[in-house]
Amino acid sequence: MSNQTKYELYKNHLERIADVRYSGAVLNWDQEVNMPKKGAAQRGRQLATLAGIAHELSVSEELGALLEDLVNANDLGAVQLKNVQESYQDYTKQKKYSKAFVEKMSMTITKAFHAWNAAKKESNFALFQQDLSDLVDIKLEEAELLGYENHPYNALLDQYEPGATVAFLDPLFEGVKTNCVRLLEKVNSKQQPVIPFKGKKFDKDAQWPIGIKLLEQMQYDFEAGRQDLSSHPFTTNFGSLDVRVTTRINEDDPLDMISSCIHEGGHALYEQGLLPENYGLPSGEYISLGVHESQSRLWENNVGRSLEFWQCNFPLMQQYFPKEMEGCTAQDVFHSANEVTPSLIRIQADELTYHFHILIRYEIEKAILTKSVKVADLPALWNELYLKYLGVKVPSDAQGVLQDIHWSHGSFGYFPTYSLGSFYAAQYFNQAEKEISGLKSMIKAGNLLPLKQWLNQNIHQYGKQYSADELCRKVTGESLNVAVFMQYMEEKLGRVYGF
Amino acid sequence: MSNQTKYELYKNHLERIADVRYSGAVLNWDQEVNMPKKGAAQRGRQLATLAGIAHELSVSEELGALLEDLVNANDLGAVQLKNVQESYQDYTKQKKYSKAFVEKMSMTITKAFHAWNAAKKESNFALFQQDLSDLVDIKLEEAELLGYENHPYNALLDQYEPGATVAFLDPLFEGVKTNCVRLLEKVNSKQQPVIPFKGKKFDKDAQWPIGIKLLEQMQYDFEAGRQDLSSHPFTTNFGSLDVRVTTRINEDDPLDMISSCIHEGGHALYEQGLLPENYGLPSGEYISLGVHESQSRLWENNVGRSLEFWQCNFPLMQQYFPKEMEGCTAQDVFHSANEVTPSLIRIQADELTYHFHILIRYEIEKAILTKSVKVADLPALWNELYLKYLGVKVPSDAQGVLQDIHWSHGSFGYFPTYSLGSFYAAQYFNQAEKEISGLKSMIKAGNLLPLKQWLNQNIHQYGKQYSADELCRKVTGESLNVAVFMQYMEEKLGRVYGF
Repeated sequence: MSNQTKYELYKNHLERIADVRYSGAVLNWDQEVNMPKKGAAQRGRQLATLAGIAHELSVSEELGALLEDLVNANDLGAVQLKNVQESYQDYTKQKKYSKAFVEKMSMTITKAFHAWNAAKKESNFALFQQDLSDLVDIKLEEAELLGYENHPYNALLDQYEPGATVAFLDPLFEGVKTNCVRLLEKVNSKQQPVIPFKGKKFDKDAQWPIGIKLLEQMQYDFEAGRQDLSSHPFTTNFGSLDVRVTTRINEDDPLDMISSCIHEGGHALYEQGLLPENYGLPSGEYISLGVHESQSRLWENNVGRSLEFWQCNFPLMQQYFPKEMEGCTAQDVFHSANEVTPSLIRIQADELTYHFHILIRYEIEKAILTKSVKVADLPALWNELYLKYLGVKVPSDAQGVLQDIHWSHGSFGYFPTYSLGSFYAAQYFNQAEKEISGLKSMIKAGNLLPLKQWLNQNIHQYGKQYSADELCRKVTGESLNVAVFMQYMEEKLGRVYGF
Repeated sequence: MSNQTKYELYKNHLERIADVRYSGAVLNWDQEVNMPKKGAAQRGRQLATLAGIAHELSVSEELGALLEDLVNANDLGAVQLKNVQESYQDYTKQKKYSKAFVEKMSMTITKAFHAWNAAKKESNFALFQQDLSDLVDIKLEEAELLGYENHPYNALLDQYEPGATVAFLDPLFEGVKTNCVRLLEKVNSKQQPVIPFKGKKFDKDAQWPIGIKLLEQMQYDFEAGRQDLSSHPFTTNFGSLDVRVTTRINEDDPLDMISSCIHEGGHALYEQGLLPENYGLPSGEYISLGVHESQSRLWENNVGRSLEFWQCNFPLMQQYFPKEMEGCTAQDVFHSANEVTPSLIRIQADELTYHFHILIRYEIEKAILTKSVKVADLPALWNELYLKYLGVKVPSDAQGVLQDIHWSHGSFGYFPTYSLGSFYAAQYFNQAEKEISGLKSMIKAGNLLPLKQWLNQNIHQYGKQYSADELCRKVTGESLNVAVFMQYMEEKLGRVYGF
């Protein structure tokens, strides 16, 4: 059998795995958006069965044999070879998990998730403590099983951000910390801007079309996607031709829905920008969570919180909220979107202090994985760090250490990708500005197509053909450079706060 | 291993198959209700893969070995044994399909469905002809592979209505034809009733809550289901705890949506009435399409087109359409719901002439499957038969041979089950009237719970524990008897037309 024939078999196999995984994604989407309440248990077993089948397919002997042959082939195209290498790496990793371990982990997570839900409801960390401790143990077991150098955290980071390590993140976050502290001091020395529309009510039904129009302006393709409501906004996809976003609406703050729409829209443009012919293959999949987040943050922050964006879209606000916007200007919305206020809850944080939330989680994750801190002491540590970095007193576990869902899913190593997303976003946007002449005027004119096309061409279309670092160097000429983010923040906050 | 242990393994296996099949149903529902247009091709392959996996599981050697042992076990309970027997029969049948054939058929159907959509849009049968011809060929291939006596159509009929054959249906339909022709002549000799609200416009948004309220009145459980809009109303389910209905709204005729809601609601009550503990097992599945249709028709026609039903629900019409209903009575709606007018479109047909539509399709299906008629000649044959039986001239393919979705899904042998449904419905409703004293007064009072419970207890809860014929005899004391339907029609039309 020729290597090209084997490659076709390998491709078919991966497409089948994608079919099952994407089917699970449809069931998940439906669960969040449509499912009636009594359907939960039957849906749970359907999802578990699909996950099991996808796993079986991804560790099949047949796939292994094809990959063993193809990974050493010298007559494949460059993209083909890269696909095979990525798949082989993934296959080797998947093979390290025994069925018993997968089942144990799945049970530990399910149990922990329920415990976290109960603990959060009662705002009592003690109810989650033992389960969190079990999760840490099983995640350490997973790190051993996967193998790592220097720090067990590296094995876990690698699952979300291939290549990221403690050695890479430590100095990076140290720099961010110093700079953010300095910038926050500057902001704190100034008056907060006055936002005339604060405290007004913004009707749900009137907000909805604004979100749709902004997605259209971003060139989100509604023929290959749709927007719905759900309790937590998310993006999901079933291939690159059906990429869905959800949002939620807060009547006290229209920028809540607007920024979440643009954020999810940015994720969605990445998925819609992957090439349909690469369905199921590494070249048809996103690079890392950090790069994915760079796409959502670039749109949400670099575009959607810019003065030019609001100069363009303020009339839209006036159209749907003529009374509420009376006496306001584009400048007011720009200020509102960029107000810096240290606060308790990560997902409500502003663009600057957000990174303190991540820093805190990063430090805690390292500490519990090396057992240098006991799980029982987490709430105290959490509260201490929030006071130190953000200057806020945490009034309850629910608003503190229990606020995020991630740990209850065993997702240690996930949080840093959020910050990486912001840093990559600043660097990519900076590069786009250099290459698209008049980009800011285009944003002001509502012409976002050139930016979307630039991202399609420079980032989206490649899928996993490059690593996060390779792509960053290819597009911007250098590796991740936090200085670009810090400069962007300094400039923008200077405009808002007048320094 | 004890037979009880083997039975547990068999049960787990069937539950897994159900998980995959119901996952496919979620993807199908989503395709009809939500999917953006560009998602079609990737969705098609996802559905094909799931169908392939469900098939693999349902013909696995492991399942076969369990069934071989269990089908001869003498220490299983009666329901367990019946489950095993049904599954063994199904297994033997499924074994006849190769994986390649199943996937080919799924792809052919997806392609044909899109061709039919385009052909119907342009009202041009030629655009569908080749795909229909391919479908006929693959269905004949299927009939050969399944095996049959006397007529290839029998193999296909059996898939929808186990036990039904041409030899059974030919005389049955001959009798129905004679009686319906006679009754239609009687109707034609009378004046049509005057319907004062005819020609008025009924706003979509005002119609919607009427449908919801009628479903609630029928005791459809909205915590285990939901209603949405789709171009063709349907019911689907993913277990008995998530049973969904769809409808569509015609502003020229509110009874269109109302009857479709009640119809789909009747289907849904059957699925919601299956026992959750029988998930995936024959005892948790409907008997046949004919019996399924008996449940939708019983509600749609025997209940929903009765004078008592409209005496109860006319105020609902007045509430949402006060102006449009001015000067009208419950009697007027009752007349409108039962007006007999030979027409072009099956799904808009009245309760009497409906069966001519089925007769025509039955004759055509027999003819194309024996190749005594060429696919290319179908439009001409269709138009000829409509003139002959219904006295109507077919003005276009869209309103003629392309009107139904069924053939585009390869569903030959499906249509007869619609008529069987009406006949069973009349017989079951007749029995319910005997057993529930004051049923008609209850309907008039909007108290539909006793009827729903009677159906739950006498029909729904058993799943496939009885065949269609066994159940009919168990509940009504005799096999299918078309005279009950004819008498019901004669009586009702006598009330409407005054004979």
